[in-house]
Amino acid sequence: MTMPKPKMFEKPRGVKDYLPDLAAKLRRIEWRVLDCMARWGYRQIITPTLEYYDTVGLASSTANERLFKLLDNKGTTLVLRSEMTAPIARVVASLLKDEALPLRLSHHSNVFRAIEEEAGREWEFFQTGVELVGDGSAEADAEVIALMASCLKAAGVREFAIALGHIGVLNGVLAAALPDRPDDQQVLRECLLHRNYVGYRAALKGMDLDAGARADLERILRLRGGREACDEALEVVRDEASMQALGHLREVWDALQVYGVGRHVTIDLTMVGNFAYYTGLIFEGYASGLGFPLCSGGRYDNLLASFGRPAPATGFALETNRILLVADDPPDDGRRILVLYRKHRREEALQKAMALRRETDAAVETVFVPDGEAADPATGSEGRWLFRGRRYDEVFRYDD
Amino acid sequence: MTMPKPKMFEKPRGVKDYLPDLAAKLRRIEWRVLDCMARWGYRQIITPTLEYYDTVGLASSTANERLFKLLDNKGTTLVLRSEMTAPIARVVASLLKDEALPLRLSHHSNVFRAIEEEAGREWEFFQTGVELVGDGSAEADAEVIALMASCLKAAGVREFAIALGHIGVLNGVLAAALPDRPDDQQVLRECLLHRNYVGYRAALKGMDLDAGARADLERILRLRGGREACDEALEVVRDEASMQALGHLREVWDALQVYGVGRHVTIDLTMVGNFAYYTGLIFEGYASGLGFPLCSGGRYDNLLASFGRPAPATGFALETNRILLVADDPPDDGRRILVLYRKHRREEALQKAMALRRETDAAVETVFVPDGEAADPATGSEGRWLFRGRRYDEVFRYDD
Repeated sequence: MTMPKPKMFEKPRGVKDYLPDLAAKLRRIEWRVLDCMARWGYRQIITPTLEYYDTVGLASSTANERLFKLLDNKGTTLVLRSEMTAPIARVVASLLKDEALPLRLSHHSNVFRAIEEEAGREWEFFQTGVELVGDGSAEADAEVIALMASCLKAAGVREFAIALGHIGVLNGVLAAALPDRPDDQQVLRECLLHRNYVGYRAALKGMDLDAGARADLERILRLRGGREACDEALEVVRDEASMQALGHLREVWDALQVYGVGRHVTIDLTMVGNFAYYTGLIFEGYASGLGFPLCSGGRYDNLLASFGRPAPATGFALETNRILLVADDPPDDGRRILVLYRKHRREEALQKAMALRRETDAAVETVFVPDGEAADPATGSEGRWLFRGRRYDEVFRYDD
Repeated sequence: MTMPKPKMFEKPRGVKDYLPDLAAKLRRIEWRVLDCMARWGYRQIITPTLEYYDTVGLASSTANERLFKLLDNKGTTLVLRSEMTAPIARVVASLLKDEALPLRLSHHSNVFRAIEEEAGREWEFFQTGVELVGDGSAEADAEVIALMASCLKAAGVREFAIALGHIGVLNGVLAAALPDRPDDQQVLRECLLHRNYVGYRAALKGMDLDAGARADLERILRLRGGREACDEALEVVRDEASMQALGHLREVWDALQVYGVGRHVTIDLTMVGNFAYYTGLIFEGYASGLGFPLCSGGRYDNLLASFGRPAPATGFALETNRILLVADDPPDDGRRILVLYRKHRREEALQKAMALRRETDAAVETVFVPDGEAADPATGSEGRWLFRGRRYDEVFRYDD
């Protein structure tokens, strides 16, 4: 079957046009967030849209069928980047290999993931994020989480909550309760990833377990709340690594109180994290009433090694498109001025327009009216002018 | 033969990473140029990276082998956009179809063209541009050219020249001298496109022509200069359409004097324009000493019709990456402050950092020093501090 050709005005289903009002809002959010990141010492880098599949493509840990792939002129497979952490790791390990750690880097980028149309989500979306490379301390985790909170505020998100989890704690509990049963562990992990707690309980019911292990695995679901969730978790975890992970999480919690973001933060030890490269603390930010996270991040202490420069690292990305849905963004109150002219008064009109652009902050449009054509801007509401469907705060006429 | 896998740290040859200093300069140029466009009443829109090959891909008039193509999940061919005029025409004819004309739109976008590696050019590069849709007058052409000059100045390009040509004049001369010989016309047009004047003269020598036609075709090469080039051209062109084209060009020239950009402008009737959709006035901007244009644009009065909303239009795009090479960009003199701390003084240190971020414009980095590790920032030249290879204007220590 031959596919029908798309109609001339059509764009692919998974992508989006941003008209002027929305584009302006998106860019204001981008700018405010990048400015906030700069104030915390993060410097922006820009990496290419196209990367090799075999390097950054695989390291990005995006499901294969969700990567956009194409071939270069030598037959090597390229991908459209699906996230920014792996590309930045590549740069830190190559062009920036002589720069001392820690490195603080920020980015604003479009990323690409193929998604079934039914889901109503987009193939291409914007992320604004940071990576803090070369510091494995709880202080570094706390810094990026506090910065994420600052960025959400800078973007105009008034009410938000940040959930903290730790890959090490969850893995420790699963390993202790289900030793040598990686498939069962994975079933439960998948349920948690999709926040399918009903499915989790059902899966648990079907598993052959002793009473203690069963109780521990049920208890995970309740390991949510304040610092006391860490204390409760201490009763469930048994191995040294998980205990250390809990200690790290508690330190991050304490540092976040100092940053003054304690009221936004809760602990949720059922969090799994959506990237395979996460190794430790992970976190997600939510706005009230929105069913998906606005931002997420975590520690990835092994990724840099795969690019040849072993170093601990942590970071986050804001989903700029989602922030657009909830951000409190005062409408653009920039003044718009119209300068109307006919040819015989062109010089006066254009001089006036140029002077207004030099001397005011207004957007100044000049409109040429050919002889014989009428031009009557009518007063609209609130003393503003309407001309050809658009509003202006002031009109200068050189069309008599 | 199987291709060897790329090394982990490699990126594709045709793409580029922008490290912090360069990225900051690129973004400053972007911001200054978009701000300039906004002051002239142009509102930014954002269109997707992926478009249909059959619609925008073909309308973009980029050579087929230079388009990056991929298939969506239904087998329809997509392209990575190769320029922005066709995507914006699509939006003007669809989402913006109820907005009155003229429409003034701006954009800043990455675009993609496959280029042989040897040329040392990039697959992905940035363009910042405008489209003025719905005004076919010489006033509109002059406006976008004057705006282009303003944008170059705003970007920090001090010395530049803008060449004006007209597709209609050149086509008129070629058609009059070589009637019914489209192949010969095309040979000469190709020579002019590549500024291969030696090749042009050689091709002319090999053609069977009467003396008058030969003289006219030789004369084209000299149709460059000020307004007098238009007057000279009047002696070469014979048909009504070309005469009108010359009249239009003269009107644009006169309007540009009013805008005060006359000293940057020259007429060059040998210009061909690099997009097939151009229909009238075309122009290119050059910096002294750079062998390729910094920006280019032109009138495309038929493109909108192919998307279903016939309207005249003109616009230009700045090659932001090239402007990066010549822009006079004062180095970022933002202050950087370092706050060093050990754990027992964390509260004081983080409070200080937050206060500095609130109350100053500085970039403030906090660095945690684990107990047992030394931290001695040494004074560098000019009273500035050096720590782990980076320079700071001020250091606050909480590490005793």
